[in-house]
Amino acid sequence: MNLSDLGEFGVIDRIARAVRRMGVPRHVVIGMGDDAAVLRPRRGEDLVASTDAMVEGVHFRWSTMSPRTLGRRALVANLSDLAAMGARPLGFVCALAAPPDTPVARIDGLVAGLLAEAERHGCPLVGGNLSAAREAVLTITALGAVSTGRALRRSGARAGDRLFVTGVLGAAALEVARAEAGRGRVRRVPTPRLEAGRTLARLSGIGGCIDLSDGLASDLGHLLEGAPLHAEIEVGAVPRPPGFDAACRRARLDPEDLLLAGGEDYELLFSARPARGEAALARALGVPVTAIGRIVRGRAEGEGSAPGWRHF
Amino acid sequence: MNLSDLGEFGVIDRIARAVRRMGVPRHVVIGMGDDAAVLRPRRGEDLVASTDAMVEGVHFRWSTMSPRTLGRRALVANLSDLAAMGARPLGFVCALAAPPDTPVARIDGLVAGLLAEAERHGCPLVGGNLSAAREAVLTITALGAVSTGRALRRSGARAGDRLFVTGVLGAAALEVARAEAGRGRVRRVPTPRLEAGRTLARLSGIGGCIDLSDGLASDLGHLLEGAPLHAEIEVGAVPRPPGFDAACRRARLDPEDLLLAGGEDYELLFSARPARGEAALARALGVPVTAIGRIVRGRAEGEGSAPGWRHF
Repeated sequence: MNLSDLGEFGVIDRIARAVRRMGVPRHVVIGMGDDAAVLRPRRGEDLVASTDAMVEGVHFRWSTMSPRTLGRRALVANLSDLAAMGARPLGFVCALAAPPDTPVARIDGLVAGLLAEAERHGCPLVGGNLSAAREAVLTITALGAVSTGRALRRSGARAGDRLFVTGVLGAAALEVARAEAGRGRVRRVPTPRLEAGRTLARLSGIGGCIDLSDGLASDLGHLLEGAPLHAEIEVGAVPRPPGFDAACRRARLDPEDLLLAGGEDYELLFSARPARGEAALARALGVPVTAIGRIVRGRAEGEGSAPGWRHF
Repeated sequence: MNLSDLGEFGVIDRIARAVRRMGVPRHVVIGMGDDAAVLRPRRGEDLVASTDAMVEGVHFRWSTMSPRTLGRRALVANLSDLAAMGARPLGFVCALAAPPDTPVARIDGLVAGLLAEAERHGCPLVGGNLSAAREAVLTITALGAVSTGRALRRSGARAGDRLFVTGVLGAAALEVARAEAGRGRVRRVPTPRLEAGRTLARLSGIGGCIDLSDGLASDLGHLLEGAPLHAEIEVGAVPRPPGFDAACRRARLDPEDLLLAGGEDYELLFSARPARGEAALARALGVPVTAIGRIVRGRAEGEGSAPGWRHF
């Protein structure tokens, strides 16, 4: 059975039924099925919104990723942006464009993946849009809330700050490179660092914060964009999974290249005043935290030449 | 010059410069350029969010619509959903997927159109996403606010209510039909009924409300979905532009068909308790208001068979 057999409203009904099975949190005043969703933040909260798209042939291939994994990863990418602002999720809207001959089972899998992550992070699907297209494009806008004036910004780093990352880097890029070479599918779904982000937003002495979606080199560029600063990174200190360097060499890939240029780790990269130590931060955030360098005054030569993911 | 000549971040910079020329309202705490946008609603407001996509070859063709008109219409479609909830706009995020060989001038026109409507309705561009794709897909999520608990719903109609529409219907469908037949381009940009919607949300005795995007017959179906009600419409009373019936006949189109099945008028369709009269509503809302029928008990035979815009 294809999308065209069910029709637009048939597909929407099917998704609405899956959403209703999840239950609706109290802050969702109006969910799917009206002209717009209505969400109720708490008193004294700002609204946070981030949008991100997954395009067939650019961000994913059906041959290298299951529909369920695609759905999970798509929501995680957006939740990770909320995490980087220190926000808690309220809900998300989702616009799907897909060819009419797309099997309904593929949409079922995609929705199951979206809703699995939605449930895990308390971020329900509250609205969407469905359209025909020649290729699949999944666009998600995640909505969240953060205490008034407490949102983490990219532009908070100062000279003298130390640079930290949560978790380990490189695993996502290694898996994608293997899948692209025909060795296995992409199965890994990163965890958005929502709790860690919310804690960072409450701590004092935190500088700039960004989530690692494009890759360390590229996202570091975004963190320092426009500021008369650069970063000194100790590449050997960048945390990686056990056995990572050897696995890269077996796949004839350069581990350093994957660590610096590989994206989609969805860990947080942030700077903090020098008094903030690794161990204390890890305890406060509840996740591994590693110091990987420091922020220094002046623009680096060759800035902007770092490799990273470019769309055009 | 094409998108691929400028690169992803070159295009984003170009858009950011256009946005900065507009000025930023005070409720935008963090706009473009961070991981997510941060907006500050007033105390005692709910958050409203609506998403909608325009797909090349499905919703528009570059041959029948200028990039500027496309941009304006895309934002209007979303603002109209906010209007139907009685919300005031706070800002919007925009995900654009486009082929790398898209001329930059086309994107400039599109952005100019988006920003023209943004400025007109006080709804700034606060974030977005840019991606390569085989065809153009423009996905907008509009964000707004409404006094706590005052959002208009689709599901508020009662038996005995009178049915009203704002403005006139049919002009959009007539223009699109002519453009599809190679006679002229689509130039008309409807006005989202934001002020009228906000007033409706404050009035008592208002039932269900929806904006007319799919067409009167189809949207009426949405308004009454799931309820043991149907509508009796007086087709002759449906308001149309002067000379509409004659213009339809010249184009060999059935005026009634365009009035019932033609979409994209973006007027409001709402029900109200019988004490609410046309003239008083028009005065309160500041736009033309016409009574077109009433809500009666019981499901109509053939319900759901009304023609309307279907994607698959």
